[in-house]
Amino acid sequence: MPPYYPVGKLPAEDLDRILRRYASGADPRLLVGPGIGRDAAVISFGPGVLVSKTDPITFATEEIGWYAVNINANDVAAMGATPRWFLSTILLPEDKTDAELVDRIFSGLADACRELGITLCGGHTEITHGLDRPLLIGQMLGETTADGYVSGDGARLGDRILLTKGIAIEATALIAMEKSDEVRTRFSDEFLETCRRYLRQPGLSVVREARLAMETGGVRAMHDPTEGGLASGLREIAVASGVGMLIEEDRIPLLPEPEALCAFYGLDPLGVIASGALLIVVEADRAKPLAVRLGDAGIPVAEIGSVQPPEFGIRIRSKGEITDLPAFDRDEIGKVFEAT
Amino acid sequence: MPPYYPVGKLPAEDLDRILRRYASGADPRLLVGPGIGRDAAVISFGPGVLVSKTDPITFATEEIGWYAVNINANDVAAMGATPRWFLSTILLPEDKTDAELVDRIFSGLADACRELGITLCGGHTEITHGLDRPLLIGQMLGETTADGYVSGDGARLGDRILLTKGIAIEATALIAMEKSDEVRTRFSDEFLETCRRYLRQPGLSVVREARLAMETGGVRAMHDPTEGGLASGLREIAVASGVGMLIEEDRIPLLPEPEALCAFYGLDPLGVIASGALLIVVEADRAKPLAVRLGDAGIPVAEIGSVQPPEFGIRIRSKGEITDLPAFDRDEIGKVFEAT
Repeated sequence: MPPYYPVGKLPAEDLDRILRRYASGADPRLLVGPGIGRDAAVISFGPGVLVSKTDPITFATEEIGWYAVNINANDVAAMGATPRWFLSTILLPEDKTDAELVDRIFSGLADACRELGITLCGGHTEITHGLDRPLLIGQMLGETTADGYVSGDGARLGDRILLTKGIAIEATALIAMEKSDEVRTRFSDEFLETCRRYLRQPGLSVVREARLAMETGGVRAMHDPTEGGLASGLREIAVASGVGMLIEEDRIPLLPEPEALCAFYGLDPLGVIASGALLIVVEADRAKPLAVRLGDAGIPVAEIGSVQPPEFGIRIRSKGEITDLPAFDRDEIGKVFEAT
Repeated sequence: MPPYYPVGKLPAEDLDRILRRYASGADPRLLVGPGIGRDAAVISFGPGVLVSKTDPITFATEEIGWYAVNINANDVAAMGATPRWFLSTILLPEDKTDAELVDRIFSGLADACRELGITLCGGHTEITHGLDRPLLIGQMLGETTADGYVSGDGARLGDRILLTKGIAIEATALIAMEKSDEVRTRFSDEFLETCRRYLRQPGLSVVREARLAMETGGVRAMHDPTEGGLASGLREIAVASGVGMLIEEDRIPLLPEPEALCAFYGLDPLGVIASGALLIVVEADRAKPLAVRLGDAGIPVAEIGSVQPPEFGIRIRSKGEITDLPAFDRDEIGKVFEAT
C-alpha cells in the first residue's frame, strides 16, 4: 500500500512519469509542453505564439486576487512573452462568502491587471461546498513572436547568470502578514510595515525586468524561482539545460529585511520562496549591456554565477570554498508555519 | 449584514455588477468578454481567434478528469471554435491522495483528450490542505478564424431553434452513478447500466455537432445548456440576444431513461442539468440542411422553436396552450441530492 502524498507539489519524478504516460505530445504546434524548468506552455498561433499558464493560490490571504494575477503573469513573462489576458476560476467557501469578500477578491484582480496592462476577460465564480477558504485558479494568456520566447532549458556553457532585486521577497511579505505578532516580539512596527509592503516594493512582479531582458537580447533562459527558493530555481534550469553551474554566494542580493527574518527563524535564504526575483541566463557578452539596461530602469541586478559543463555539477562558492549547491526538498518557509 | 451566498454559481445580477465594475474591457482584441450566454472568451490572435474557457469540476466523481476536458471542450465548441489545447490545475486532498488516484485522474484526462483530438499541454498539480476531495480546474484553448465564431447573443427574429440528442443526459448519468441503490429499488440493473453509460452514449460531448453546424453555415448562436437545464439555456440566449422565443414542448427530445428518472424523482425535465444537448439557433432557411447534415452523421436533432420579437416574451406551447417558459432558480437535480 503506497503512502499518501504530503501537502505541496507532487514529487517531480512521479509527475514526470505521469506526464510521460498521459500528456499527448503529438501536436507539432505545441512548442513547449510540461517539464522541469518550464514555466508555461508555448503554442504556435498564426505568425506569433501563445504562452499559457495556470497556477492556483490555495493559501488563505487577503490578497488572493492580486496574487493570482501576479504569480501567473510572472511565469508567462519568464518565458519571454507579454502577459495579456487573464481568466480566473474562483471557488468560494459555503456559509462564509458575502458580497464584500467577492468584491475584495475582484478588486485585487482588477488592481493587478491594471498595474500590468492585462485584460480580465472571463472565468468562472462559484460557491463550492466543503471549502474553508477561497481558492483562486488563474489562467494567463500571453503572446510573443515565433522566435521571441525562451524556456528554462536554453542555458549553454559560458553563459552568465543574473538575478534581479533579491531573494526571499515573497517570503518576507508572507511572514510579515501571517506572523505579525511573532515578528513584533523582536522587530519594530516600522520594520514590520516595510516587510508587509514587500509585495509591492521591491515587488512580487518580474514582468518589467523580463520584458527589458528580452528587448536587450541574448537571453538563453529565464526562470521565476518560487517554491524551494533560488537554489531550486537554479537547479531546475541546470537540469533542464543539461549543464553545470558555479554560483557566487557573496554576490547574491539579500535585502536587510529578508536577511533579518531568515536569521530570526533560522531559515536558509537560498531555500525560501523567492517570487520577486528573476533568474536570467544570458550570453556572456550580453550580460553587461543587460545589467546596464536594468540598472537604468531602476531594477537592481547582480551577476551571481556562470554556466559550467555538466560534469562540474551545480556548485556554490562561499567564503572561497566551493561546495555543492544545497538542495531543498521542501521550502524553508515551511519551518515558520509548521510550528503553530 | 448581508447573508452568505448559497452553494453554486454566484447570483447572475451580483456577478454582472462585479464584472461591470472590475473587468477591464479596454483591449480591442478582446472580442467576446464575460456575459450572460457567453460560453468562453474570444481573443483576436493574428489572422485567427483564440477561444478560452475555464471551468472547474468540484463535485466528487470517479470521472473528474474525463469530465473536466469535456465540459470545457463543450463551451469552446459552442462558440464555434475547435478545442485544441488543454491545461489542468489539479488540487488533491491531503492524507487521501496516492499514486493510484493521480493515475486515475490523468488517465481520464488523457482518454477525453484522445477522444476529442485535444493536446494536454501543461498545468499544475498539488496536494492542497483542507480539501476532502480532488478539485480539477480545466482551461481549454480553442481556435477558429476571425469570422468563424458565434456567441449566445446572435439570435434574430425568425431564426429556428434546434436541439441535439435530448435533454437530461448529464442528469441521467449523475443520478445513476450517485444514487444507484435508490434507482435499483424501482428499475432493473440493465436500466441502471444504460443510464450510467449516458456520459458516453448518447454522450456528454457536443463537440462534433457544433463543428458540423459551423461547417453547414447560417448559425447565429449556440449554447451548451448545463445548470438550470434547457429552460435556463434558452432564457440565456433570449436575454443575451434581446429576443423572444416560442418553444414547442412536444418537440423537445426526451429519451426514455431521463423521462423515467425525472418522473421517479419528480423533476421537471426542462430544469435539470443538460450537458450533452446543444442548442443551435440558425437562419430559417438553413435549419433543414443542418438537420439533414446532423442526421446523416448519426446525431439526432429536433427543431424545438423559433425566435420571436422581444415583446412576445419567452414562451412555451404545451398541449396547445401557450404559457411562459418556466424559470429555475436552481437546478432541478438539487432535489435528488438534498434529500440525503
